[in-house]
Amino acid sequence: MTGQEQARQRVLRYRLGQPLQTADDRLAPEEPLEIRIRARPISVTMRTPGHDEDLAAGFLLTEGVIQSAEDIVKIEAPQRAGGFNLINVFLRPEVRFDVDQLTRHVFASSSCGLCGAATIEQVHKHFPPVESALRIPIQTLLGLPDALRAAQDEFAATGGMHAAGLFDAQGKLLIVREDVGRHNAVDKVLGHALRHGPWPAAEHALMVSGRASFEIMQKALAARVPMVCAVSAPSGLAADFAERSGQTLVGFLREGRLNAYAHEQRLTF
Amino acid sequence: MTGQEQARQRVLRYRLGQPLQTADDRLAPEEPLEIRIRARPISVTMRTPGHDEDLAAGFLLTEGVIQSAEDIVKIEAPQRAGGFNLINVFLRPEVRFDVDQLTRHVFASSSCGLCGAATIEQVHKHFPPVESALRIPIQTLLGLPDALRAAQDEFAATGGMHAAGLFDAQGKLLIVREDVGRHNAVDKVLGHALRHGPWPAAEHALMVSGRASFEIMQKALAARVPMVCAVSAPSGLAADFAERSGQTLVGFLREGRLNAYAHEQRLTF
Repeated sequence: MTGQEQARQRVLRYRLGQPLQTADDRLAPEEPLEIRIRARPISVTMRTPGHDEDLAAGFLLTEGVIQSAEDIVKIEAPQRAGGFNLINVFLRPEVRFDVDQLTRHVFASSSCGLCGAATIEQVHKHFPPVESALRIPIQTLLGLPDALRAAQDEFAATGGMHAAGLFDAQGKLLIVREDVGRHNAVDKVLGHALRHGPWPAAEHALMVSGRASFEIMQKALAARVPMVCAVSAPSGLAADFAERSGQTLVGFLREGRLNAYAHEQRLTF
Repeated sequence: MTGQEQARQRVLRYRLGQPLQTADDRLAPEEPLEIRIRARPISVTMRTPGHDEDLAAGFLLTEGVIQSAEDIVKIEAPQRAGGFNLINVFLRPEVRFDVDQLTRHVFASSSCGLCGAATIEQVHKHFPPVESALRIPIQTLLGLPDALRAAQDEFAATGGMHAAGLFDAQGKLLIVREDVGRHNAVDKVLGHALRHGPWPAAEHALMVSGRASFEIMQKALAARVPMVCAVSAPSGLAADFAERSGQTLVGFLREGRLNAYAHEQRLTF
């Protein structure tokens, strides 16, 4: 059994001072999804099944293939029969893309340059720095982790999945998605925003359950999101990217605390 | 500033009930590294600089390009002058590889099939299931998280980096590596084992600081590691892969507890 079907699995549990126990456990489903454009395979990603249309749309957006929902003519329902996981996206004929460039681009974990500065410059050619009048009180931000956790189901909250959520300036959670891959959770949120709004998400904040990497910042920038919050630490390149991209970067947002690493002018007290 | 140079960064701190503070913070360095074989670029990965030779060797091993240390003629010292990050690997002329296949392979997050079962079968063509007489007492396993954490430096322990460690059957930590990318930390550990031993690591356990994904299990299998332990949850596909690959999979190994998801016969009480 694989993926969804394997939601439950026998597990041997040990707790200090207790006898060994056998129990049923639930594990995060993880299956490859092939994304095709005009019937041509362009990506295979390991993801948690569900919201695959949003994932495909978000992936194409954050990888720079499409700029708007209008670029998408149709997304076919994902084909999962017989363990077969693929999704076909049809784009406007005017949308051009270079599979080799895209392949290399994705393949390179969204990096096109050979040093951090060159990488950021390359990204800015696709996605220029963001400007936004967004302001969020620190007290509002402190409530985001609980709001995100409350929106996850009990299973996800056990730590098997990453979560990403899009919040408005009042701290209201608009979209939440979970996935074994953090980048997939973000793509699903941003793909939903692209297809169904709010779009662009220029007055919103993206929160992720884990750490903030360069890749997450890039994806947020593709959707014009001016603020990214993470439960855990950002990487150095993520902070550098945020500073140069006009993005507010908040880390260690949990338990009544936070650190701001870039563009803290959007935080009010 | 990017990467290493940006180890320290100004940060605005907020703690509930305290005034805002400005402080210096250290962030995980993250820079792209281009890996070249025979001067041809085959991969760009976002990684924490350091142990790049091990990373390159481990990457080539776990992606199925090389099978032994003898396949590597030479790894040049990484070039970092002027923000330029690349490393050249020279392989024996007999070692063949198909860049397109490799690109697609890596690009696909180590997945070549379109469903979980097909993915596992594909991997087993490269890396057959493992057999090992390894046995480790549960009491020994319970000590691994502390051993791994003690070997990380103070910075990494703050949560900005993933850690991976290779342990022997007595619970002795042999190799530990940290990276912003979990797969990189694993590649660095396994690349070091390939180049300097123990090799194959067929009587050893790999421990990772986060979750256990399909990709981690595949990398461990490439090095013939029969046991993988994770501080957090495994994915469903990781458990399925472990079961079919003869690998013991332990999750939630922390604070005097653990769950075994596959081949628990290697755990003794």
